[in-house]
Amino acid sequence: MISRKKANDIKSLKKKKPREEKGLYVIEGDKLVREYLEAGINVRFLIARPEFLKSLPAEIISKVDDIEYASFEELKSISTLKTPHNALAVIPIEYNEPDSEEILKGLTVALDFVQDPGNLGTIIRAAAWFGLKNIICSEDCVDVYNPKVIQASMGALLHVRIYYTGLSGFMRSAQELQLPVFGTMPEGESIYDHQLAERGVIVLGNESKGISEDLLPLVSDKIMIPGISKAVPGIESLNVGMAASVVFSEFSRRGYLNKSPK
Amino acid sequence: MISRKKANDIKSLKKKKPREEKGLYVIEGDKLVREYLEAGINVRFLIARPEFLKSLPAEIISKVDDIEYASFEELKSISTLKTPHNALAVIPIEYNEPDSEEILKGLTVALDFVQDPGNLGTIIRAAAWFGLKNIICSEDCVDVYNPKVIQASMGALLHVRIYYTGLSGFMRSAQELQLPVFGTMPEGESIYDHQLAERGVIVLGNESKGISEDLLPLVSDKIMIPGISKAVPGIESLNVGMAASVVFSEFSRRGYLNKSPK
Repeated sequence: MISRKKANDIKSLKKKKPREEKGLYVIEGDKLVREYLEAGINVRFLIARPEFLKSLPAEIISKVDDIEYASFEELKSISTLKTPHNALAVIPIEYNEPDSEEILKGLTVALDFVQDPGNLGTIIRAAAWFGLKNIICSEDCVDVYNPKVIQASMGALLHVRIYYTGLSGFMRSAQELQLPVFGTMPEGESIYDHQLAERGVIVLGNESKGISEDLLPLVSDKIMIPGISKAVPGIESLNVGMAASVVFSEFSRRGYLNKSPK
Repeated sequence: MISRKKANDIKSLKKKKPREEKGLYVIEGDKLVREYLEAGINVRFLIARPEFLKSLPAEIISKVDDIEYASFEELKSISTLKTPHNALAVIPIEYNEPDSEEILKGLTVALDFVQDPGNLGTIIRAAAWFGLKNIICSEDCVDVYNPKVIQASMGALLHVRIYYTGLSGFMRSAQELQLPVFGTMPEGESIYDHQLAERGVIVLGNESKGISEDLLPLVSDKIMIPGISKAVPGIESLNVGMAASVVFSEFSRRGYLNKSPK
């Protein structure tokens, strides 16, 4: 039986401020919880139906200090999902400090004010798929620990490091190292023809405004994904998640991304 | 002032059955409604704030028989959106009968049991961007007139024809015409290396199950998007919207898609 206090604490983690104050976030779903446990991620509480707990190897269970059995109704009462699953875990947030020099040894994604949680989740999933290891988010991007981001990224979050920081400083570090900063924008050159690289930054902009004015001078390589004429109403652009998938795919196709897991 | 009956009629169109019975669906949002009006789409009712109506050219307004002014509160009460916009329109559904021979003169997308409305919307948007004109949906795909599909596809729905039909018959037509049927699946050949074509079918499968067993024998060309090893927990696959974007992009890059608007 989950105490009322604990249930309220968990429910409060739907919001960003309580997540930051408590340094905790929630993951839900049998598959996701199992993946986190199997990956050896530090789990603060695990709340699950007995069936789920029985299905886990004993050595995994033994690593979690605080485990509670819950009924479907209890899980439902604390879930953010329409259809709750059999398990929910509370995980300590680990803030990553970006070490620009280290990160810039490979290709890095920089997201400028990406607001939609589904889009951030999709981008994380695409980054993990194509072997990108680091994503730098501007401070005004949606919070990666938002439950909708967690659901959309699925287990991919285990394979990508997310950092929140000002993008201009990071892009300047790339500039100082004479590395390319790729930015997608309508007036760019076709990504299919443009020279790509195995080190540098791929900047993706806000859903409606694109890359901010003040960052544009730091973009050395303007690229775009060719499509139907922009003059056609209704087809202004791909959404940022789709654009990310296509851009990462093209870097991968041309051999600039390492496809071995982290 | 919108009558209670009309308000209820419009609200009922959130669900598939009333949409099919009445043969009507709803679009919302200033930009989308404007695009539909400008494209000359037959609009059954237009409900909008006075400011929105004033911003439209008179010749567009004159084509709509049934226009009602509404306040923000009235729009809010009939909207499916969290933040309602200034305009909503009710549009007659046009059912398209697929003419396989005509459709198979180019590349066509076939969707097998795509369930998530956001994914269908994304695929429509990607198809429109890369110049694919026809999407065949299996009967068990999510309804294209679901408000979430409309929101995710944005104006792209104006540029792509959607058909609901059994996929096996359509895929057999392609087979009879000796056209390739491309299907994405983990055991496929890398799409970057595989021979593509300017005529044929691109089949994308269900979010978790992929392409159905019974359709697999009709897939002549198994393709996949290379990524991190499938052995890594948490990175099983790209989602179907991302996969569609990458696949369409690759056909486009290699010159198999016409980038001029319809």
